Amino acid sequence: MRLVVQKYGGTSVGTPERIRKVARRLIETQRDGCQVVAVISAMAGVTDNLLKLAQEISPEPTKCELDNLLSTGERAASALTAMAVNALGGRAISLTGAQAGILTDRNYTKAHIANISPRQIHELLSDDYIVIVAGFQGQTPEGETTTLGRGGSDLTAIALAGALNADACQIFTDVDGVFTCDPRIVKEAEKLHEMAYDELLEMAGSGAKIMQSRAVEFAKKFGVEFEVRSSFKKSRGTIAKEETPSMEDVVIRGISLDRHQAKLSIAGVRDEPGIAGRIFSNIAAAHIIVDMIVQNASIAGTTDLSFTIHEDELENARKILMPVVGEIGAKRLNTMSGVAKLSVVGIGMRSHSGVAARMFECLGRNSINIQMVSTSEIKIAVILDEKDAERAARLIHAEFGLGRLLPAASATQPLA
Amino acid sequence: MRLVVQKYGGTSVGTPERIRKVARRLIETQRDGCQVVAVISAMAGVTDNLLKLAQEISPEPTKCELDNLLSTGERAASALTAMAVNALGGRAISLTGAQAGILTDRNYTKAHIANISPRQIHELLSDDYIVIVAGFQGQTPEGETTTLGRGGSDLTAIALAGALNADACQIFTDVDGVFTCDPRIVKEAEKLHEMAYDELLEMAGSGAKIMQSRAVEFAKKFGVEFEVRSSFKKSRGTIAKEETPSMEDVVIRGISLDRHQAKLSIAGVRDEPGIAGRIFSNIAAAHIIVDMIVQNASIAGTTDLSFTIHEDELENARKILMPVVGEIGAKRLNTMSGVAKLSVVGIGMRSHSGVAARMFECLGRNSINIQMVSTSEIKIAVILDEKDAERAARLIHAEFGLGRLLPAASATQPLA
Repeated sequence: MRLVVQKYGGTSVGTPERIRKVARRLIETQRDGCQVVAVISAMAGVTDNLLKLAQEISPEPTKCELDNLLSTGERAASALTAMAVNALGGRAISLTGAQAGILTDRNYTKAHIANISPRQIHELLSDDYIVIVAGFQGQTPEGETTTLGRGGSDLTAIALAGALNADACQIFTDVDGVFTCDPRIVKEAEKLHEMAYDELLEMAGSGAKIMQSRAVEFAKKFGVEFEVRSSFKKSRGTIAKEETPSMEDVVIRGISLDRHQAKLSIAGVRDEPGIAGRIFSNIAAAHIIVDMIVQNASIAGTTDLSFTIHEDELENARKILMPVVGEIGAKRLNTMSGVAKLSVVGIGMRSHSGVAARMFECLGRNSINIQMVSTSEIKIAVILDEKDAERAARLIHAEFGLGRLLPAASATQPLA
Repeated sequence: MRLVVQKYGGTSVGTPERIRKVARRLIETQRDGCQVVAVISAMAGVTDNLLKLAQEISPEPTKCELDNLLSTGERAASALTAMAVNALGGRAISLTGAQAGILTDRNYTKAHIANISPRQIHELLSDDYIVIVAGFQGQTPEGETTTLGRGGSDLTAIALAGALNADACQIFTDVDGVFTCDPRIVKEAEKLHEMAYDELLEMAGSGAKIMQSRAVEFAKKFGVEFEVRSSFKKSRGTIAKEETPSMEDVVIRGISLDRHQAKLSIAGVRDEPGIAGRIFSNIAAAHIIVDMIVQNASIAGTTDLSFTIHEDELENARKILMPVVGEIGAKRLNTMSGVAKLSVVGIGMRSHSGVAARMFECLGRNSINIQMVSTSEIKIAVILDEKDAERAARLIHAEFGLGRLLPAASATQPLA
């Protein structure tokens, strides 16, 4: 018998009516001849409310107590989902992460899964139960509750699918799958049928916040194939899997856009060991997340160092850096908000030379100025003026042939 | 070192500010040289919201899932309380009922405590932790979460106090203690310094909803003394304990009032076995709670049977009983809403004869009509017209000398 792990996010269980829909799908999946394990997130908004309460109690709440607190959201949603299955004539039982056998380290609020002992799940499955597991949580060997970090329910699902040797792992979410670009920006954007873990990782790190990166890394490490699909529709989603040779035939898989970025450049930085460390340790101490970092080759012993952050953090970062710029003897600090990061991702880049050149030419031909560039093996990211960003995404989408071939009249042509 | 168990109800932890107040009190108690175990209820409103969600999912939610769901309220409040203690420089840790070693039977939603293994609590106390226990819950030997029924946190506190052999068990609530009568009705009402378990049980069953009856019964069975006191004030409350000979010197301990009652009388009921059973099984099947039941001695083979229910249930009860009255060949059904039950309670009644007579005379002298009477060994309850009820309470309060001796000018006289 096929064993399927399904994960439902907070929006998918956001109201009693939606919980009933999830329950119906679980029952249908079981009737189709599958053993079903469902991983459930907290109802939308619940975790934020609990966090708010914690912050009203203490600016730095005890981490182990934060885990005790936050884990209740998933437990409540799991119990409600089990009730809904039972109310519809199914047979379900809900388990906490601990009861599901998920053991973690003691790294509270972002614990790592150490081991999974799915004995109880197997027993319940063979008794024909639909097993509902509270996502995002586990317990230490000493029996203390831990949580796996934001989006940790994805990790729960993928880790359980691996431990149970499941035939399928389905991540139900409020998007239909992963697209070549955000369809709100590029109307020809196409849903991807499959992609490599690394591509999803680069997309997830680039504004297309579909999955928690740790969950994808875990899937990659243990080779757990999973599908991202919509909890509101029946259509197939996007399968993330190990890369196959044929995947390289596609030059780029997708484009993603990060808006509301700010760019900071420190000019005339002495090219000496420890200088960059002094700059970024001050930024990190203020919990400001730095995205791209670019340092040019030094000329005459000094260089320019540029990096990007979210524009909401710009004022804070400027205050922190002004004295540092003086201390390290740099010339000046330039800042600019209203920029966006455009990333193109694809493992095909490895075998297709000239991708960057073609991308830059396309932008240049259309008078779009590139302010910063950063590349990885399978990604090229550029910083642009925010007002050019959407047009750039559409141009590059067309340049690399990512769009559907929409006939002039209407979109009746079957998808590739 | 003294070991104190303190229980805080939902109102006492209803907001972050109140949780901080509770935390301050816990820390003070520890600084006074005590080991402290705190039992915490869900924040006010949380349990009702969870119940509402469950009912939106299913009219009859799976009981074990209801326990999984409802237990999260106390877990969250306990974690928040532990955070608050830590934020104030104290040292606290929160435990679920299961972690606190509370084992129950499998009677979901109203489980009975079977055993308590407080090993972990003892260990944490000797490590100087303030131990915060989620009230209202335990687990079965198989590790499934159970709850102890509404108000179950009182039971958790009293059972833990017993198992830990605590030196004191303090039930913090939104009232100052148990009064001779509701001070909103009788302004001379006096806070009781102590009372017998049985008196509190009769008071709790009579509108003065201070404690869950099961908790008081448990305290009585295991001889756990406890104090009911205010979480908002520093003043001493009321101690419930085994009765002492001196307690009998007081004729009545207190007066309580149940309003919004309805009275139903079935006239001409045949005095045969099984008839009363037919009447009340129909009522019970509709989950209508019957309070007083009075049956007169039969005359010529028929009798009148009267009982009281909450007036909200009257229409429902009438519909259920109309056909039954015909089936059992009774004469008719009379119903009346707008009545109240007035109870006077005191173990002193056992040794003081004429209490009922004195009470009835007092009411008669003041033209207050008594519609029904029911007595237990330590209680006399009468049904009155609701409009007479408050005046009756004040008259009887004075008749039995329960009031404080307020001097004419101001209440400066020390309490008895």
